[in-house]
Order: sequence, then C-alpha cells, then structure tokens
Amino acid sequence: MSEISERELGEIYDFAVQLGKDAGNLLMNFAKARWGDKGSGEQLFSEKDNAVDIVTKADEDVEAFVKSSIQKKYSTHKFIGEETYSKGASRDYLIGDEPTWCVDPLDGTVNYTHLFPMFCVSIAFIVHGKATVGVIYAPFLNQLFTACKGRGAWLNETQQLPLIRNPIPPMPARAPGGCIFSCEWGKDRRDKPDGNMHRKVESFINMAAEAGGRDGKGGMVHGIRSLGSATLDFAYVAMGAFDIWWEGGCWEWDVSAGIAILQEAGGLITTANPPQDHQTAEITNVRLGSRLYLAIRPAGPSDTETGRQTQERVVREVWKRVRELDYSRSGA
Amino acid sequence: MSEISERELGEIYDFAVQLGKDAGNLLMNFAKARWGDKGSGEQLFSEKDNAVDIVTKADEDVEAFVKSSIQKKYSTHKFIGEETYSKGASRDYLIGDEPTWCVDPLDGTVNYTHLFPMFCVSIAFIVHGKATVGVIYAPFLNQLFTACKGRGAWLNETQQLPLIRNPIPPMPARAPGGCIFSCEWGKDRRDKPDGNMHRKVESFINMAAEAGGRDGKGGMVHGIRSLGSATLDFAYVAMGAFDIWWEGGCWEWDVSAGIAILQEAGGLITTANPPQDHQTAEITNVRLGSRLYLAIRPAGPSDTETGRQTQERVVREVWKRVRELDYSRSGA
Repeated sequence: MSEISERELGEIYDFAVQLGKDAGNLLMNFAKARWGDKGSGEQLFSEKDNAVDIVTKADEDVEAFVKSSIQKKYSTHKFIGEETYSKGASRDYLIGDEPTWCVDPLDGTVNYTHLFPMFCVSIAFIVHGKATVGVIYAPFLNQLFTACKGRGAWLNETQQLPLIRNPIPPMPARAPGGCIFSCEWGKDRRDKPDGNMHRKVESFINMAAEAGGRDGKGGMVHGIRSLGSATLDFAYVAMGAFDIWWEGGCWEWDVSAGIAILQEAGGLITTANPPQDHQTAEITNVRLGSRLYLAIRPAGPSDTETGRQTQERVVREVWKRVRELDYSRSGA
Repeated sequence: MSEISERELGEIYDFAVQLGKDAGNLLMNFAKARWGDKGSGEQLFSEKDNAVDIVTKADEDVEAFVKSSIQKKYSTHKFIGEETYSKGASRDYLIGDEPTWCVDPLDGTVNYTHLFPMFCVSIAFIVHGKATVGVIYAPFLNQLFTACKGRGAWLNETQQLPLIRNPIPPMPARAPGGCIFSCEWGKDRRDKPDGNMHRKVESFINMAAEAGGRDGKGGMVHGIRSLGSATLDFAYVAMGAFDIWWEGGCWEWDVSAGIAILQEAGGLITTANPPQDHQTAEITNVRLGSRLYLAIRPAGPSDTETGRQTQERVVREVWKRVRELDYSRSGA
C-alpha cells in the first residue's frame, strides 16, 4: 500500500472540511423543513412523514451524500458509516490498516429529533489505524471543529484549539476540583442493581460530591455537563472548555473525528475503565474502537510537572472515583 | 403609578433587545481577551489578572454597563442585578409592584470561566410582578432569545418559538417517555444522606430509568441534559428543544427573562416541589422568586386533550417521580 504524502494529506483535509460543511448544511435543511422555514428544505418530505421518518431520512440521505462524495474522489479508500454498519451484524474492530473514512452523518440524534442545537456531522480520515483528519460541524451552533495531524486543531478555521493557549494552563492542582466533568446518561437504562446505569450514576455522584464526602471519593468538580453528543463532548474537551470526559459504549463513528481533533489539540485519551493497579498502571493511548473512553483536555506544564504529567494525575484521580463499565465489542 | 402604554412597552422592548446585544458583545470581548484574540478586549485587564479576576471583572463591568444604560433611559424604574444583590444580606422576595428591571449580567459563570459556550446575559422587564419583556443573549452561540407579552417569542428576531409550530405538537402520550429532561447538579454537593444533592440524583434516576423500573417510577426519558445555565435551560424549553426542566435554588435574575420568554412561547411554569395531593392539586403558575421551578415546553392539543391538559399531565408525571428540594428564601 502506498504511503500518503503531505500534499495528498492536505488535499484530503481540504476536501473533508468542505464535505463537513456541505453535509452539515444538508442536516440543517432537513431541520428547518421541520420547523416550516421557507427554503430549500421544504420539499424534502411529504406531509405524512413524522419526526422519526424525517430524522431517519436526514441520517440516511446525509450518509449517502458523504459516502458518494468520498467514493467519487477516493475510490480506493475504505468507507465506514454509522448507517451502513449499524444495520450489519458484525461488531468486530472496524478499523484496519488501510486508508479509511469513518463517518457519523448525525451525532446527537435525540437532540436533532427535538431540535436541540447540540447535533453535528462527524468525518474522520484514518491512516494505519490512526485518526489523522477530523471534521466536526454543528450547523445550528455555527461551530466547525477541524484538525489534521501536524497542522493544529481549529474552531471555525481561525481560532486555534485549545482556546486558552498563551500559555495553555496545566490541569488544576486540586483536580478533579476546579474541573468541568462531561458525561452522558446513555441509552442503557436498565434498573439492575449493578447495571451500567447505576455504575455510571455512582461514578457521577463521586465526581460531584464535596471533597471528603463519599468515603474520600468526593471530587467536588466545578460542574457536570451532559450534552447528548459524544462527538461534541470531544470537541469541547479539545476547546479546553471541558476538562474531563468519561464514557462507555461509543462506536468508532462517534469518536474518530473527535480523537483526531483532541489529539492534535494536545489532549490525552485513554480507557474509561480503571485498571486494577490504577495508581501505577501505565497510561496508554486508547485503541480506536475500544468503546471505553476517558479524555483529558490539552494541558501545559505547572511549576513541578509537565503538561502530560498533569493530565496523567487527573486520569488517576478519575479512575479512583469511577466504576468499571460493561461494554464489550459484541452487543450492548 | 401610571400604566405603561403599548407604545412605551414597544420602546422598552426595542431598548432591552439592543441592550442585550451590547452587553453580550461586551461579555464576548472579555472572553476573547482571555484566549488572546487581537481585538478590543485585549486591554481590558492586566497581565497579572487570573481567570477568576477576569470573570469577576466581566460580571461587574457588564452589570454596571447595563445598570447605567437603564438608569439613564428609565430613571424611575427599579433595578435588580445579580452583582448588586448577591452582595447584600436581604433575601426577601425582591420583585414588587413597580416597573422593575431584573438582570443577570452573566448566567453560566462556571461555563464562562472555562469558555464553554453556554453562557449568556439575561435582561427582564417586570410590570406588576409579571415578567413582561425578556432578552437572553448567548454571544458565543450567536443565539438571541427575545419576547414581549403579546408579541411572540423569537430566536434571533426572525424565527418564532417554539420552532415546531405548524402545528405545535402535544406533549407525548407516554411522557415523560419521549421527553428531553433538563436538570442541573448545582452547587449544593453536601454528601448528606437526605440532602439536596442526593434528593436531586434520586429524582434524576427515576426520570432516567426504564419504564417499570424503580418500583414503577422509571420515566425512561428520551435524554437527560445538563448545560450549567438555568437561563439557557429556559430558552431551550421555550424553543421546544427541552420538554421538561426541573430545578431548585434559582434567584430572580436567573429566571425572570426566561419566564417572560417561555410564557410568551406558550410554556407552563409551576413549582418543582410536588404538593402532597400531587395527582389532583391545582396547577398554578409559579410565583417569581419561589426558587423552585418546573417548566414544560409549549404544547398544542392532542386528539383528546387541550395543549394545557397535555402539559398538566406531564407536570403530574414529574411530581410523581421527583423529591422535594430544600431551598427556602433565606440562605441555602
């Protein structure tokens, strides 16, 4: 397999950014058609279609548009889209060594159904299993997040991420105190005593409670946020707005673009589930597809630590407070 | 006291909208100065200022700007601002009968500190104790929410709220199933067995859990969202994006503009704390300043109910699942 040159990568990046804008605008046309705006969206569906039909159609049409655009331009590249794969049975690791596009045409589907603005399109280009280009566009927020390995991560193509960068602050000394903790309740709501929902909630309470509370596990985070979009959670960690994001159950299309952007911005992404020796275990970059993610925002050095050391300190503080989640590659 | 004519009210509305834009842009200048943008913000503070100094200065400067603008134009009106009042000792009901401006120069302070875009300025004009004009501007999101009694509620001055309005859908038949439930963890994180944090979390879990779970209290809501801004929570309920918002502990400046906008859009706002006879009690509009709020989005009729009936049905479904919160007028 031939390597991709820097010039080719630049072309791919430009193409992905334009594709993200076009796909996001298409999503927005479907949304506007629902609220009855006069405009191009109006003839997108019939009077009989209900909200679920419309969202399904938006999802499928945007994926078809993105897929055909990519296949026209890069016919030899592999394509993985949420709509294509979620209908299939195989749930093995999806990303191999070959140049691959991984696309979620609509992340934050529940938000989109309700027209809450936290929805987006997510497009990643992956080389040798590494997310190399990432584009996230939230059209209702007018927020475009982009990155290409070696070229920085950007908000709306003009503002480099993280936003505060002269200098980039270290993680707080008393973290998770002082941090914004981002998490999602998710779809697994089974009321089983030790099920994922109760494990998550127990972890949320530990992060939230006053320092000293919860038998010493109280994290007294500065705030807890739940947006309903794993992809935008990543984007706001890259921005530096969220300090910590912890989640289980995501698929490759939920996270690939976010990983590309957050890593390029200087963030750390490892596993959500605490290893047994969580205070000493090596902290490795997560494998794309593991379904379990803990992300820490970009951080600069403190007086006594490197930026990476401040991030790793926070990883261990989170691992101390969270429960192991049960999401495997097959099912769930 | 002389009554305010429709013409005067129109002038006050126009003035409030422009004031909201100007104040929001001022907030954004302070934010940009932190991320080192070249621009008017740069000379706003010295190199020595830290994040907390800057946020405090933004908060105080924006309130001073809004207050002086109002006093110049409407010298006989009363002014209540968060910065002014939170420093005082009195925590009685703040809103009387006289024409009153109630302002939060910066709602979502924690978000602003971290540069998460969910922050806003909130300006309300209140007549005879009723929120009559409301302006909420979130400059980082480019989202402006405005309303004046009798003139509709609007997003960015062009799109009437709620967004889906031809027709406005009823609340779901299986509500809280199908609903987005918006809530905040808040600042009271004391790890007391029956304290506010644990009462809140128990309520959140009831709303989230599968139908049939939690001894029949499982609400299986479609999603749970926490933005960290009571004011923007209101705005998204008015938009129709959030179906239910439930919260305790807010002050008048957190909610006045939101109440004006949500009521004009057709929402219902009552008390968060379930009355003893919660399945039969009369559902009354909340008193501004009660500190306990339950908001339901605008709703149209179903085949068998009026819009208001669908909303009241949801109020009772929420009351069935939530705990009483302990926020009085004095302290907390």
